[in-house]
This record gives sequence, C-alpha cells and structure tokens, in this order.
Amino acid sequence: MKTPLRIGLIGYGFMGRTHSNAYSQVSHFFDSSHVPLRQAVCGRDEEKVRAFAKKWGYASYETDWRKLVERNDIDAIDICTPNDSHAEIALACIANGKMILCEKPLALNGAQGEEMVAAVEKAGLPNLVWYNYRFLPAVTLAKNIVAAGELGRVFHYRANFLQDWTISADLPQGGAGLWRLDAAAAGSGVTGDLLAHCIDTARWLNGDIVSVSAMTETFIKERVHNLTGQKQAVTIDDACAFLARFANGSLAIFESTRYARGHKALYTFEINGEKKSLAWDLHDMNRLSYFDHGVPGDRRGWSSIHCSDGDHPYAGNWWVPGLCLGYEHSFVHGLAEFLKSLDDPAAEKRYPDFRHALGTQYVCDAVLEAARTKQWVDVKQA
Amino acid sequence: MKTPLRIGLIGYGFMGRTHSNAYSQVSHFFDSSHVPLRQAVCGRDEEKVRAFAKKWGYASYETDWRKLVERNDIDAIDICTPNDSHAEIALACIANGKMILCEKPLALNGAQGEEMVAAVEKAGLPNLVWYNYRFLPAVTLAKNIVAAGELGRVFHYRANFLQDWTISADLPQGGAGLWRLDAAAAGSGVTGDLLAHCIDTARWLNGDIVSVSAMTETFIKERVHNLTGQKQAVTIDDACAFLARFANGSLAIFESTRYARGHKALYTFEINGEKKSLAWDLHDMNRLSYFDHGVPGDRRGWSSIHCSDGDHPYAGNWWVPGLCLGYEHSFVHGLAEFLKSLDDPAAEKRYPDFRHALGTQYVCDAVLEAARTKQWVDVKQA
Amino acid sequence: MKTPLRIGLIGYGFMGRTHSNAYSQVSHFFDSSHVPLRQAVCGRDEEKVRAFAKKWGYASYETDWRKLVERNDIDAIDICTPNDSHAEIALACIANGKMILCEKPLALNGAQGEEMVAAVEKAGLPNLVWYNYRFLPAVTLAKNIVAAGELGRVFHYRANFLQDWTISADLPQGGAGLWRLDAAAAGSGVTGDLLAHCIDTARWLNGDIVSVSAMTETFIKERVHNLTGQKQAVTIDDACAFLARFANGSLAIFESTRYARGHKALYTFEINGEKKSLAWDLHDMNRLSYFDHGVPGDRRGWSSIHCSDGDHPYAGNWWVPGLCLGYEHSFVHGLAEFLKSLDDPAAEKRYPDFRHALGTQYVCDAVLEAARTKQWVDVKQA
Amino acid sequence: MKTPLRIGLIGYGFMGRTHSNAYSQVSHFFDSSHVPLRQAVCGRDEEKVRAFAKKWGYASYETDWRKLVERNDIDAIDICTPNDSHAEIALACIANGKMILCEKPLALNGAQGEEMVAAVEKAGLPNLVWYNYRFLPAVTLAKNIVAAGELGRVFHYRANFLQDWTISADLPQGGAGLWRLDAAAAGSGVTGDLLAHCIDTARWLNGDIVSVSAMTETFIKERVHNLTGQKQAVTIDDACAFLARFANGSLAIFESTRYARGHKALYTFEINGEKKSLAWDLHDMNRLSYFDHGVPGDRRGWSSIHCSDGDHPYAGNWWVPGLCLGYEHSFVHGLAEFLKSLDDPAAEKRYPDFRHALGTQYVCDAVLEAARTKQWVDVKQA
Repeated sequence: MKTPLRIGLIGYGFMGRTHSNAYSQVSHFFDSSHVPLRQAVCGRDEEKVRAFAKKWGYASYETDWRKLVERNDIDAIDICTPNDSHAEIALACIANGKMILCEKPLALNGAQGEEMVAAVEKAGLPNLVWYNYRFLPAVTLAKNIVAAGELGRVFHYRANFLQDWTISADLPQGGAGLWRLDAAAAGSGVTGDLLAHCIDTARWLNGDIVSVSAMTETFIKERVHNLTGQKQAVTIDDACAFLARFANGSLAIFESTRYARGHKALYTFEINGEKKSLAWDLHDMNRLSYFDHGVPGDRRGWSSIHCSDGDHPYAGNWWVPGLCLGYEHSFVHGLAEFLKSLDDPAAEKRYPDFRHALGTQYVCDAVLEAARTKQWVDVKQA
Repeated sequence: MKTPLRIGLIGYGFMGRTHSNAYSQVSHFFDSSHVPLRQAVCGRDEEKVRAFAKKWGYASYETDWRKLVERNDIDAIDICTPNDSHAEIALACIANGKMILCEKPLALNGAQGEEMVAAVEKAGLPNLVWYNYRFLPAVTLAKNIVAAGELGRVFHYRANFLQDWTISADLPQGGAGLWRLDAAAAGSGVTGDLLAHCIDTARWLNGDIVSVSAMTETFIKERVHNLTGQKQAVTIDDACAFLARFANGSLAIFESTRYARGHKALYTFEINGEKKSLAWDLHDMNRLSYFDHGVPGDRRGWSSIHCSDGDHPYAGNWWVPGLCLGYEHSFVHGLAEFLKSLDDPAAEKRYPDFRHALGTQYVCDAVLEAARTKQWVDVKQA
Repeated sequence: MKTPLRIGLIGYGFMGRTHSNAYSQVSHFFDSSHVPLRQAVCGRDEEKVRAFAKKWGYASYETDWRKLVERNDIDAIDICTPNDSHAEIALACIANGKMILCEKPLALNGAQGEEMVAAVEKAGLPNLVWYNYRFLPAVTLAKNIVAAGELGRVFHYRANFLQDWTISADLPQGGAGLWRLDAAAAGSGVTGDLLAHCIDTARWLNGDIVSVSAMTETFIKERVHNLTGQKQAVTIDDACAFLARFANGSLAIFESTRYARGHKALYTFEINGEKKSLAWDLHDMNRLSYFDHGVPGDRRGWSSIHCSDGDHPYAGNWWVPGLCLGYEHSFVHGLAEFLKSLDDPAAEKRYPDFRHALGTQYVCDAVLEAARTKQWVDVKQA
Repeated sequence: MKTPLRIGLIGYGFMGRTHSNAYSQVSHFFDSSHVPLRQAVCGRDEEKVRAFAKKWGYASYETDWRKLVERNDIDAIDICTPNDSHAEIALACIANGKMILCEKPLALNGAQGEEMVAAVEKAGLPNLVWYNYRFLPAVTLAKNIVAAGELGRVFHYRANFLQDWTISADLPQGGAGLWRLDAAAAGSGVTGDLLAHCIDTARWLNGDIVSVSAMTETFIKERVHNLTGQKQAVTIDDACAFLARFANGSLAIFESTRYARGHKALYTFEINGEKKSLAWDLHDMNRLSYFDHGVPGDRRGWSSIHCSDGDHPYAGNWWVPGLCLGYEHSFVHGLAEFLKSLDDPAAEKRYPDFRHALGTQYVCDAVLEAARTKQWVDVKQA
C-alpha cells in the first residue's frame, strides 16, 4: 500500500522547477511506500502560478503562502523562496505541523537557523534542506569510500565553486532571478549561494570545520537595482576564499566567485588521504577521480570512474552502464532518500536536515566574520 | 489550445522506459500544441504490463498488440519490441491509420524497410525512428556547425561504439533483455544495435555512404540460450569494423564491439574538415570538442564546449549554464521535434523518419554483405 | 673500461638532428661500456654539413657517403637519408663491415628489405631501425604489461597517426624537407611515413598481422614540385586506412592521414584484452591509459599513469617523479638499448632490427596492394 | 665570432644535473654569441665530483668552492648548493667579479637576499636565479598573452604545487637529497621549495602581491635525521596555503604540500581575466588551457593549446609540431635567455634576476610570518 505525501510548494522559480521535477519523477525510478502528490503550488502572481500548476500537474494553487501552510490537505511544505523568507515560513509550517523540505541555505544566518532547528526538533517533524549535490552518484560514491575509512588519515581538502555570469557591469541586481545579487534577500553573495554547497559536502565527507581565515571582494561596486531602477551599492560578496582547519587535523582551502571567466558552474572538490585521494567536478558530474596508492607503483594513476554502472549509487535505478545522468537527478535522489526515511524512520538518514544545515550556516557566518575582521575565527558547532 | 496525442506503447523494456519518460517529461520543458497522453501500454505479461502502466501513468493496458493497434482512442503507436517484429507491427499500424514512433533499427533488413517506407509514405502518416543520439545538445550543435558549411571540404569521418558487457563466456543469449544476442530476434549483433547509431549520425552530419569494406567476428562461438536452456551457436556479430567512402569524397572508418574492455557505451564520432574539426563522445555527452583553424596559430587548440548554455540546442529549456543533461533527455528532445512537426507540418523535419532509417539499414546490409563476401560493396541509396 | 663506438652519420635533416642528440645525450643518462663518438657526418652541401658538424660536435665531415662508408675510423653508420637510398647505402655499409642504425622505414618495399636483411644477417653485423616510439616510457610500460600476459585474450587493436600539415593546396612537393610528398623518394605517403610507426608498435605489442583490407586517397591531386618548379601529379597517398586481422585472432583498424584538421602528430594506439586495456597518445606521451577489470566494479575506471616515476621504464635515469620527458628521449633510449646489446650480445634485444622492420614493410606493402586491388590481401611474414 | 662563457658549477646533485644538461644542450638548439663552456665543477667528495666532471664533460673539478670562485679562468658561477649557502657563495662570487646563476630560492630569507641584491647590483654583474618553469613554452605563451593585455581586468589567480613523496613516516630528514626536509639547510619546507616557484610565476604574470594570510602544518612531527641518526623534531612546513591580494586588485589562493596523495609534481596555475582565462599544469606541461570570451557564445570553451608549433615560444628551435618537450628544456631556455642578454645587454631581460627573486623571497617571508602570527601580513616590495 502506498501512502500519499501531499506536497505544497512555495515559489516556482528555478528551484521550484527542480523540485517539481523530482516530485514528478521519483516514483518512476524509485520505490517507496510514501509517494509524493503535487497537491498545491503557491506564488504571488496568480496568472503565473496557475500556469505553473498546470504545466507541472499541481492539483491546486495559492497566492498567499500563509493560506497554503494552513491547509489541512498538505503534509509537507517545500520552501523555494528567497533566503530572507525561509525562517518565517518554516516557523509557520512547524506551527501547523507540516514536514518541511527547505531550499538551501537554511537561513540568513546562524541565529535564524538556531530558532528553526529548535522549533522543528521540538515538533519532531521530518525536515530536509536541499543540498542536492551530495546525491549525485559520484559524490555519494566518494562518501561511501570515505565512510569505509579507505582514505586513512586525511591531510587535505579543497573545493571551489566558480562561475562567470556576473562579470558584466551592465547586469542589474534585485528582482526576479536576480535577488541573489541583493544581500537583503540573499543574506550574502557567493558565500551563501555557492560556498554553502561546498561546505555542506565538505562537512559530510570530512567532518567539522573548526577555524577559518577569509577574504571577500565586491568587484563591481554599483549596479542598477531592478526593483528601484536606481544605481545602488552592491551589498553582496562577488568572491570569497578561505583557509580552514578541520577537526580531524586536515587543512583546506575554499574559493568561490562569479568572476572566473570560462567557468559556468565549476563546483569541484578534492580530498587527499594517506592511502587514497578523490576528486570530482560538477561539469563532468558522472565521473569520480580516484587514486589508490595501494596499486603497484608503476601502475598507479588517477582513474576516472564513470559512475553509471548498476553498482554505483542510484545509477542502477535509471538506465544502463555508460549512460549519463544529469543535474536534476540529484534532487530526485535526495527526495528518494527523504521518502525512504519516512518509510523507515529508524534507518540512518542520508539527507541533510536542518541541524546539519545549521552547521553549514555557522561556517558561512564565520567566513564572513573572518573576512570582515581580517582575523582567524573559530566556528560554532551545531 | 492543446491537441492531445494519444500514445499506445508496445513493449515496456529498456526502451519502453526511455520513451515513457519522454512522454512524461516533454511538456514540462517544451511547448507545443500537440501534447502526448499516455493512453495505453501493451505487453504479453498482464501483471507486469499493469504494473508498468501504473508506474508510468498509462490510462490503460493491453496484452495483444493487434488490439491496441485497432483501438480508436489511439493516435500514435510507439514500437519498442525486438527488431524482428517492427515490420509486422508497423504495417498493421499503417493499415489502421496510426502515426508511428518506431524504435531503431527500422527493420531486420532493407527489404522489410522498403515495404514499411512505401506503406507509411503512401498513407501519409507521420513517422519517426528513435535514433535518439542526434538530439543531444552537443550532437545537434555539431549538426548546426556542419550545416552552416563551416567545415569546408570534409576529408575524414570516424566513429565507433565500444562496449564490454558480453566478454564473459557465461552470459547467455536470447530471452528478456538478451534478445540482442540472438540474430533471429535482432537481425544482427553490434551492426544493427550499435553501428546503426553511428551510421545514422554520420549520414545526418556527412551525407550518404557509397561503398564499404568490412569485417565481423563472433569471439564466443557458443552460449547457452535462455529460451531453450541449450548451448547454441551464437549467430550475431560480436564486433564489426568497416571502411567507407562518402558521396562527398571523404573517407571513414567505423568500429563497434561488445569486447572492448573498459568501455561501457563509448559512442564517439569525429569529423575533419578543411577549416574545422568536431569530435564527441557519449561518456562525456554534454561536451563537444571543437577545433577552428581560423584561430591564430599560437592560440589554436581543441576546445571543449560544455553545451549547457542557453544558446546551445535544447539546453535553454532545462536549467542554467554548466549543469549537465543526461541520456534520457535525448528522447525528450526527439519527441519535442516530432510534436513541433505535427504543429507545423510544413517546417523542416529535424528527426529521422522511416526513409532516413532505411538509408541507414542499407548501409548495415552492405556492411554485413561486405564482411561475408570479403569484397567492397556499393551501398543502395534510400 | 669504455669502448668507443665511432659513428658516421649520413644526412643531417630532422632525423640527423634527433640522432645526433641521442649520441650527445646518452652517456649523460645511461651507463654502457660502449660509448658513441660523433666521428663524422656526411652531406652533399659542404658548407651546411660543416656547420652541422661544428654545432653537434662531429670530429669530421664528408660530402660523399661512399667515402664515409669506407673510412676505417668508423664503426657504425647511421642512415638518415630519404627512403629511396636506404638499401643502396646499407648494402655498401655491410660490404664494409659497418654496423648500421637506419632511419625507418627500412626500404622502399619488401624486395629491397629482403636483400638488406639477408646481407646484414649473413655478415653478422648489429643493426637497428629507428622506430623510436616504442622507447617512450609509456609505450615500453605497455609492452611490459602485454608481455606479462596481463591482458588475457586480446580482442581489439586500433591505432592512428593523424596530422594536418599538408591540407593547404599551396604546399609544394619534393626537395629538402618535402621529399616525403614525393613517392619516388619516399616510396609511399602516410603509409610508409606514419602507419609504419603504428604497425611497428602494433606488431611489437600484439604480434603478426595476417591480412588487411585498405583504402587510400590523394586529396590534392597536383602540387608544384620543388625540384622542377612544375605542377605535377601527387604520387603519394595523403591518407590510408585499413582493417586487419592479427595472428592471435584480434581485429584491428588503422588510419593515417595528413588531412585531419587539428591534429599535429596524434599517434594513438589502444589494445583491448579480456582482463585489461591500454591506450596511449603521442600528444600526451608521458601518460599511459590503463584499465584493469580486476578492480572491484564500482571502482573501475581508466587510470592515467604519468610514467615519470623511478620504476617506470627509462624514467629513473632522468629526473624525479612527475617531471615530463620529451620526444627526443625516445631516440636516446633506443640508442641505450643498442649499446646495452653491444655490451651483452647474448641478452634479449629490445630494439627493432632489420628483420623486424622487414615484417613492418611487408604489412605496408600488403596495405598498398589491398588499396590498389580493393581486395583483402594476406601479409607475407618476415 | 663566438665568445666563450666559462662556467664553474658548485654542487652536482639534481640541480647540478639539470644545469649541466642546459650547458651541454643550449648550443645545439639556440644561437648566441656567448657559448657556455663547462670549465669546472666543484663538490666536496673528490671521487664523486671527478666522476661527474667526466660524465658531463667538465674540463676540471674542485673540492673547495672558494678556490673555484677565485679561479681566473671562470666567468660565471652556477650555485647549486643547499639554500643556506647561497648568500655566502654569491657574495664571494661578487667579490671575485663573477657573474652568477643561482639556484632558487635566492636565500634563506629577505635579509640575506637584500645583501645579495645590493652587492650584485653595485658590482654590475649579470645575475640569474633559476626559476625555470617560466621558460616552458606554455608558460611563456601565457606571459605573452597577459603582457599583451588580452585578459582585461584580472579578478583571480590560483596556484598550487602538490606532491606526495613525504607521506611515509619512515622517510628520514637531512643529508644528501633530504636536506629539503631540514629547515636549517632549506630555510623552510614547501614554502621555499615549491611555493616559491608558484610565487615567481604569479608575480611574473600578475604583478606584485601586497598582503597575505596563511597557514602551515607539519604533519609528521619527528623523523630520523640522516646526519645524526637520531629522531628529531621536523622543523619544516609540510604544507602551506595562503590567501593573497595582488596590487592589481585581484584575489588569489596558493597551496603547496608534500602530502597530496596521487600528485607527483602537480604545479598548476590559473588566471581569470575579464576577457580571457588561462590555466596550466606541470604534469601536462606542453599544453596551455585557454578560454577566450570573445568567441561566440555557443562556441566558447576551454581550448587546450599543444604548445609545440613553430610559432610557440622556444618550440620552433626543437622538433616539429605535435612533439613534446620535457622538463629539462626549461633550463635550456632560461640559459638561452641569459646568453641572449649577454649578447645584447640593452634588450629586455626575460629571466628572473636577484632583484625579482628577492621580491619572491619577501612573499615567502610574509607567508611564514602570517602563518606564525595568524594575522594578515603586508608584503615588503623588492
């Protein structure tokens, strides 16, 4: 017997589409007792939200998120709004007993996040934050290798997330699709948008980060704001890099920017252990680079594992060996893990929840403080 | 206003899944007046076909394909059965006035294909053969570059499709999923299964092939047959390679095998023109390798275009720059082209129809004859 | 104690330079009792040959190769002249009791080669043909892996040598540096110049080739001849591709051209065995691609071995791990093998001699005949 | 007419060999009026230094560097000793009027370096520091592109130098070949040994570094010392990473370690400008990665320039397009630049001299201070 999980989606932008796709696709490829139903979608522009509901097969729509959150025919709310509204909406969801699937980052800052974690844990509601990249087969394979202790002592971690889409000084800030360039809505620039992904994966693979030194820069100081039509100071960080020390004694460097010409969405990480090293990049997301020092000396090399075989994580649910998956599959897999966890709440959770995301938020906060103060900053632990 | 296109799917194996996914996904990402409805699916095992219908949202199911073909509430039949039944089913579809979307290869041989082409063209029914790889963004970009004449005179074409999944002598032949190893069901081995893809793309990019010299080999001579339980002679070609000359004067080599250790589904092609060269491979399917001799001497190099930007074919309908698409997107795109063509029958068709697939069949026939006779063979033109 | 090996070099073009470099460098990096001395160099243009002798430290020079061959103070002759003179010079060397180091290909054809082999073997003189690529660390590593039987049964071999330097119709033929475009001097085009390298390595790695089907093409039919100033028919093959069967039952495709836009000197090979596969290319010559099916399923991938460690062939004689060698090192290594063999004549020879090069010549001859007759041709065995 | 440049080499270890190779090779491939003569080599172990002199063709040898420095038949001294002796030897050379070619880093610290720079500039003696990597064709091509202003405003620079050869706790420190693990002899660990290379190239390509934040780590705290036989504290940095700001406003991250499993000598850099980006790595040293935003949108990609054509820096002096150079060629090219500058002292110097190397030393000093103090440190400018 199947148990419906009636979803209410708030926000129908880029992330609204990726999540809707996950709700549409998950049952075609993964088995679970809980089956998501696209019950309602919510947005402020009625015409647009109606069209979205029709295109994606939502049974209904709302234009006021508070009404959606109060509906009795909704089991879980998916929050896809700009970052500045996550906390308020999440707290309302919790008050109404809804499970929450919240787009990352969790909140504008650690203080908001603490309130959210306290409330959701007190209410005992299942909760997920959409740090999707860990659910790609190659990244989950990396996790499995690390978790099995195969790396031995870890010495180094490095990650970056490089883009180039904001180099033009003519690009405005604010408004639909561009709220990511406005610190009031986004909280920060690349730190919360991009580095948060790097930090989530890093903490999943390599444990807690304990201290950081950072620098940030805003290369284009003023841009026209879409909501005011005026040239205004750019309030976000265009680029951020930081040094870090992990609790396990390893050293790390992290970097993110939207000014790295030639990189569209180059999210990469590498981890170097005593016995093995692993590396990955989002542009070639089906591959994991793998170095095993146990191989005899003259045969050692980095191997490129095309993670599309039946024995690779998630891959066996899709096609046949050698055939690529895409970006959106990460959300389908994350959702499948959430549903599996609803089926069997006692099993180990393999998705990031609010508490884990709070830890990531604390690192972001420390990074921004370190950049501001030009000091090494200790990271608060979630 | 939307016009429903009621689909009846015959066969629910690997290809049944990829096509069902296309019917499910296309309207989420592409606009067209014609919208596919998953009306019915047909398979001989009632329990399994019912489960498939439920999972993929088909409104009904049948266990006899003849009944499906005769139903009045079906506009188009999608044929996903083994190759030996394509001709019979297609002719029945035509007799019943159904459009046809037929899995490749078109038929067991050119003679069957000729009958199918004659019938479908006489009936004036829209018809497609699912040579899906051309619809990947990188491959369509290659086509656009070639079609614009940017390569100048073409000198060389090379393609291969390398797999390694049949190396074990313990693998049986015949039966579900393994009919591809039985020439009675498949017509041939790698020639019809894999080289047909290479040939379809080659003819699309570089025009007609006029003559071939070939060799084939069956490395494992006997395998247990799943339907009989007996060890029987293997009747297919495990590997096939051929030399070819195109009508435009260029030379080509083609190779396919299921015995290339280390390659899961390495479909690659390369075309060398006077001014530019292009290369692609399925394992890294989002990238097109591009060489432009017009670049100044010391700056010339092969560039790797990550075909995930808004101005790349199909990519703008999905996510944002840098994010990968996967294998199954090719079917969505092919279906989108078919629907667009139904909306505007006068526009240029950008999908392979029966006649184009017959041309590919003729090349396969010539290749097998050349291998058998150890002679160069002229290729019949469709 | 060191034994001098007094070298007389005939020809001081591109190959004269690579060989001279080997004579200059070998003792800096390899130990042997026999030590080459640059005794004399020979060329027809006195001014140029004198300058070459000075630059490269040759103790003397000659302008008539017959005089050089007769000199008593010469132990070994290195033949770097165009292909049409190899046989005549070699036979004169043998008559004068000189060892021979002959640039590849051995001769214009098998008939010449047979005469040379018979003479040199009867005289018992050490002899080498400069098929240099096998001496690159990655290629020798491939040989070692194959020789240890690690591949198991071999199914496939493929190789190509792609260049693009003759695409311009304005390039003349004949004369200094361009004799490679004149069949009278070169014997053939890409077949003897480039495919001969591919065939040498293939036979070294995978044994004898027994039959071939081929095609050749001359894309630019006429070019100005540098020696006559007239536009003359181009007599060489601009491109050649062939199918082959090896004695061990494996299938192969070979291709070479000077019309593959974007490839400067892309010599690649790949060999697929039951258990392992290997691939290599000259543009990234320090790396060997290595696939080991024995690795557990989810960890399998092609690994890229940077063959620059102390336990890689030849690499330990140079620098430290990770540092690249270059093209010319192949000649140094080949010379080192020749010297080692002089030191210990009983040890296994690891360089190609006249007889091995004759086998390669027979394949070239069969390929050209197959292209001419459009028939499969059996290959004569050396 | 040729002018001999009589070289006296002090030290015959790894660097003694690379420099000797350059003296042996340069005149075979580059023209200059000044021609190096291998006049004398100096080392403390007479037997070994005599053998080295014989192998590399030095006309004489010394066992006391002070005697060498005072010889009248020496024009230039090449210092290849451990870092702690550079200053003393260099000052003695200057006192004796010798030109100096000094192995990097210049000195143990900025204070030593300042004294060396003051003395050599006062004496007006030609001086070079062997930061060799800039002389690789791909790196020099990068410089040429940057120098032509093609990148526009620069936003980011990143570089690392990753090795893995000291991971084993059994590796001793000190003594022949292992003095790099002893801070008394080396000054620092990876900072002076590896990061110094990264910094030299970075400053050449992107100008002055003005401030840094850094961290260092010594992963293995004690190792047996080869000179004492005792287990002693390891005094060097095993790993170092730093954030930096350049005078041109760009941000940078640098990292070096000998604990990055799988990397032998992975020196990489990348520079991102408004219009173009460049990247390079030492393991594939013949290639430059090049991104040109001026290419039309759907054709943009990183291209891999194989810097082996006649119009690439230095490459035309060697072989033909497509053929690789190796590591040691960098020293030959650097020497060729030094000789060219002796021929024409008025021309722009394209090699790093003492003053440039002092600037690099200042960055190293600042990095080590920043790591020690956990503060951002301003860099002194040379």
